[in-house]
Amino acid sequence: MQFASDNWSGVTPEVAAALARAGDGFAPAYGDDALTARVTGMLAEVFEHELAVLFVPTGTAANLLCLQALARPGGYVVCTEQAHLHVDELNGAELLTGMKLVPIATADGRMSPAGLDDALARSPLAGRSARVAAVSLTNATELGTVYAPDEVARLAERAHAIGAAVHLDGARFANAVAATGAFPADLTWRAGVDLMSFGGTKNGCWAAEAVVVFDPGAHPTIGDLRQRTGHTFSKQRFVAAQLEGYLTDDAWLRTAAHANAMAARLVAGLAGRLDVTLEWDSTANEVFPVLSRATAARLRAAGASFHTEQERGDDEMVRLVASFATTDDDVSAFLALL
Amino acid sequence: MQFASDNWSGVTPEVAAALARAGDGFAPAYGDDALTARVTGMLAEVFEHELAVLFVPTGTAANLLCLQALARPGGYVVCTEQAHLHVDELNGAELLTGMKLVPIATADGRMSPAGLDDALARSPLAGRSARVAAVSLTNATELGTVYAPDEVARLAERAHAIGAAVHLDGARFANAVAATGAFPADLTWRAGVDLMSFGGTKNGCWAAEAVVVFDPGAHPTIGDLRQRTGHTFSKQRFVAAQLEGYLTDDAWLRTAAHANAMAARLVAGLAGRLDVTLEWDSTANEVFPVLSRATAARLRAAGASFHTEQERGDDEMVRLVASFATTDDDVSAFLALL
Amino acid sequence: MQFASDNWSGVTPEVAAALARAGDGFAPAYGDDALTARVTGMLAEVFEHELAVLFVPTGTAANLLCLQALARPGGYVVCTEQAHLHVDELNGAELLTGMKLVPIATADGRMSPAGLDDALARSPLAGRSARVAAVSLTNATELGTVYAPDEVARLAERAHAIGAAVHLDGARFANAVAATGAFPADLTWRAGVDLMSFGGTKNGCWAAEAVVVFDPGAHPTIGDLRQRTGHTFSKQRFVAAQLEGYLTDDAWLRTAAHANAMAARLVAGLAGRLDVTLEWDSTANEVFPVLSRATAARLRAAGASFHTEQERGDDEMVRLVASFATTDDDVSAFLALL
Amino acid sequence: MQFASDNWSGVTPEVAAALARAGDGFAPAYGDDALTARVTGMLAEVFEHELAVLFVPTGTAANLLCLQALARPGGYVVCTEQAHLHVDELNGAELLTGMKLVPIATADGRMSPAGLDDALARSPLAGRSARVAAVSLTNATELGTVYAPDEVARLAERAHAIGAAVHLDGARFANAVAATGAFPADLTWRAGVDLMSFGGTKNGCWAAEAVVVFDPGAHPTIGDLRQRTGHTFSKQRFVAAQLEGYLTDDAWLRTAAHANAMAARLVAGLAGRLDVTLEWDSTANEVFPVLSRATAARLRAAGASFHTEQERGDDEMVRLVASFATTDDDVSAFLALL
Repeated sequence: MQFASDNWSGVTPEVAAALARAGDGFAPAYGDDALTARVTGMLAEVFEHELAVLFVPTGTAANLLCLQALARPGGYVVCTEQAHLHVDELNGAELLTGMKLVPIATADGRMSPAGLDDALARSPLAGRSARVAAVSLTNATELGTVYAPDEVARLAERAHAIGAAVHLDGARFANAVAATGAFPADLTWRAGVDLMSFGGTKNGCWAAEAVVVFDPGAHPTIGDLRQRTGHTFSKQRFVAAQLEGYLTDDAWLRTAAHANAMAARLVAGLAGRLDVTLEWDSTANEVFPVLSRATAARLRAAGASFHTEQERGDDEMVRLVASFATTDDDVSAFLALL
Repeated sequence: MQFASDNWSGVTPEVAAALARAGDGFAPAYGDDALTARVTGMLAEVFEHELAVLFVPTGTAANLLCLQALARPGGYVVCTEQAHLHVDELNGAELLTGMKLVPIATADGRMSPAGLDDALARSPLAGRSARVAAVSLTNATELGTVYAPDEVARLAERAHAIGAAVHLDGARFANAVAATGAFPADLTWRAGVDLMSFGGTKNGCWAAEAVVVFDPGAHPTIGDLRQRTGHTFSKQRFVAAQLEGYLTDDAWLRTAAHANAMAARLVAGLAGRLDVTLEWDSTANEVFPVLSRATAARLRAAGASFHTEQERGDDEMVRLVASFATTDDDVSAFLALL
Repeated sequence: MQFASDNWSGVTPEVAAALARAGDGFAPAYGDDALTARVTGMLAEVFEHELAVLFVPTGTAANLLCLQALARPGGYVVCTEQAHLHVDELNGAELLTGMKLVPIATADGRMSPAGLDDALARSPLAGRSARVAAVSLTNATELGTVYAPDEVARLAERAHAIGAAVHLDGARFANAVAATGAFPADLTWRAGVDLMSFGGTKNGCWAAEAVVVFDPGAHPTIGDLRQRTGHTFSKQRFVAAQLEGYLTDDAWLRTAAHANAMAARLVAGLAGRLDVTLEWDSTANEVFPVLSRATAARLRAAGASFHTEQERGDDEMVRLVASFATTDDDVSAFLALL
Repeated sequence: MQFASDNWSGVTPEVAAALARAGDGFAPAYGDDALTARVTGMLAEVFEHELAVLFVPTGTAANLLCLQALARPGGYVVCTEQAHLHVDELNGAELLTGMKLVPIATADGRMSPAGLDDALARSPLAGRSARVAAVSLTNATELGTVYAPDEVARLAERAHAIGAAVHLDGARFANAVAATGAFPADLTWRAGVDLMSFGGTKNGCWAAEAVVVFDPGAHPTIGDLRQRTGHTFSKQRFVAAQLEGYLTDDAWLRTAAHANAMAARLVAGLAGRLDVTLEWDSTANEVFPVLSRATAARLRAAGASFHTEQERGDDEMVRLVASFATTDDDVSAFLALL
């Protein structure tokens, strides 16, 4: 009953097989290989758009690279207070970009247009909205919710109106696509996203993350920025191979849909209970029930694995994460235990 | 006839198999898994010393992390003029550490004690040797040569005498061990190396590099430094698995010995020729012959792949790199062509 | 009727005279001169404590140096949402320290113990209070209020309890001393302040700011940090001379008391009026009345100079700043106009 | 007999008087005052060119700001091995720009076209000249020599040919103008200089340095760069006043000519002696004789003050610096003692 994190799972058979196929023979290093070119083409098809792709090792690396590309002296990045790049990346963005992250409180992990408007009118942004270099959204969010295309578009419109770019942290982008049923293009460039962190690791790759730039010529030194922080794999076909396995025949959307479905079963099982509170509707692969400490302890003692998100006196909010590797049996066992 | 670079090769069967084995099931992320612990133990055995190990994605990341751990305001890092961290890492070390790299000219890629003494007496180090935070050596060097343990020791002694730490860039450490026949411990901590970049990628892994700290408690914030630059893999078992395959039964030393042997055959074949000059003795897996441009062009036309290191009028110095994947047939074919 | 800022005023006769006296002859550069030593001694007397003093050109430079001295990878600095270092210094602290500034909302510019406790319990600090490297207070605050010694002490106690240092931004420290009547020692080290930005510029110097470290041995590389960002004046006696004129015979406290008194007259004149709102009690040299736009425009047309702090529909909050150079006549004229 | 440094002297009567005049009354802060505008106009006349001027506190700050304005990821700055920004600024440029300084050995402090060509052909620049973002020259140089306009032009031509900008460190620019008799325009933009650090401190100001940009629109965020490192004086008229006194009626060139003349008397007195060696011709205000240690000790014991530049067994190379404040009597006394 592993619900600790989607990065506790290993790799999908498709990714493992693709990686095994790519291990033989020679190929140019640093991205000049045929497989990297092919996967770039696959991503262009997925997004129905010309694009530049830069593989990087981690989601943090992807976020750092995107924000470095957008950096301005004295600039600001607006994000949510739950944003991974705000709370979990040890201020790498501040150090490498000299920008300040301005977090917006949210009810369920999603920035709202009203929340953005309000933040632009208050300290430290009041009167300084021209300094906002980027608005960064996460989809699926860190709280298991998703933005629909028009929700992204409304935020992007406001960002562009003040001259800010729109960054998408897509560490769980597959879950957002699966949950919304929207085309990847509709969730990104058609809604105004300028560049994104495209994640594969949490959804069945070993370490396959990429920066996707929808205006390929917009950041001519972005390759240098990647190299000088040590994020350029020499054997890039190793990321390319993973993504080939990931993207072929929509494998990435099937695994994400499975993870979402497992989370939906958890929600369904939790929703009716008097001793459990769900404070917002999760539709991607994460669920955050509030349980009594006693219940949480009992579940853990019985072998369930999950993190505490927040302590609240006798209760705790916990985080349950489903992944491609979560089984129906695990979910059933967990709900039965409860 | 692939001699372009050892990072043009793929992965060894041992590494591929270990990675395939590790892909199933769940494991704690961020290094708390059993496999990471086991591989840390394997490295401790290899080096016969207690140590801290931090997996990172690339050799550049490893170098950056080592130098960040050693950084002082206004500090200096002494290296050779060929050092990868000096010429190929786009000044990441300068940006992230605020230190200046002071390169020393070398005859064959190896820093000599006299060269180090001389550098300490001249601008910008003259009178400022107390500002030298680190001396960085590469073994095997970027020019295919190797340091013996006592050569490392003589340099480390000088470094420690001025209060500087000794960093070893071991992107090709396996080749150095294979070429010298020395124990890993004798080439590192017993000779005075304080921390090192331990490389697996060039010798048959996908992306497996590690910072090895020989005084495990010396750098308490090094994990934070790794995280804030986006170098912390979530699924660390993916590096651990590669290194398990790499280290088990000395596979890493066999592949390195093979690469060295292939390079030695190249040297033997080139050494006797009037139309080829070898300016120094290479004993690891890289060879740098000076050929006429016409010869180089002819070899390339016939299918040989290699980089030009330096243009010299009608001649060029080229770089031939052997790896675990270089075959006897390739070497024979290349020499026959010549 | 100049109320735009205290840095629109020039220098006091005492400062001008001291500077004129210091202009002749030779003196060692970079702080090795007798005058610098003498002024360091004067500051030690003012604070009744052994201390290290580093002159710097601006208040921003002082804040940057203090925070660099305290920096930790992935660290946090807690301050108020009005803090100059948060809103007016273009993220220099983030860039140079890699720390995140976490602003606390305040009613009147003063951090409260409850506000600090609350911030420590919420994102991004919840569960990460050990990462808080510094709590930064401003006294007098950016909103014209002051902390009494016990108010500083209560905040410092909380800071030290989580291992954080206490930084004081004392750009208007003289106004705080004059307003509280407290000894400088009681407002600083006796209350738990570890290091401070001591300002002279706003209170009658040309450019005289200093970092004061109450544990002189605590930051051995702080001089190097100052030098590498270009903040080390060669002719340091130029700052020393200003501070000699500033500190001699308590000139600094007289000018600050005068500025505070002028602001108090403004408060008295504004407080009784129905068409003016004062949202908090200012006791230092800044007052923030809310006026109708029409009134503000009328005052400006008549020659009064002041900044708009916040637009509020038909009203605006304005900022009136008094300095050593503000005259009784100016205040009377302003109030008469109103 | 003060020959330690030109920054051991105080201020000229012209500077002192101008500063005294500027101390009264109110003026807008941060450079919006009339005096700052007037001095910007004076500099435009001096240079016969439209320009942007940014006052900064120190020469290091000026150099840092120029190089930040020119920075590129992975870029290089070519300078001499004696360049102040290379040896005396604690790697601030590396930290803030992420660029590598590549020093060129010189005979007398002056970069030669051949020296530059040679550097571009060797490690680390070989094959990477497109990465050179700036060539930085110092005039007068750190060794008391000067570049004539055509010497600057020949270097600038090479710099521009590879897409690099030309930065001039003019900490002693007045001495260069006085020594060459060239127009300031001929030594700068007409010769290809793109932006410069214009120094006043060493030649009779307290702290008056400025970045001069010859293409005023070239660096739109340079003001933000200055602010975020704490280099923006609030009372800018304080620098402006100094420079007004400095520039009016060519006072700056008279003081520089005096300093140069005093140095020339030292050269004349030293040149004929058998026990003194002058290794290059100094024509600005610094002289570097090689003396026996015994002689140097005897001079110091008799009250002469100067720094040792280099120890050489029984000899030492010392540095004698003349300034506006150096008297004929001091020079005579020094030579008599010898």
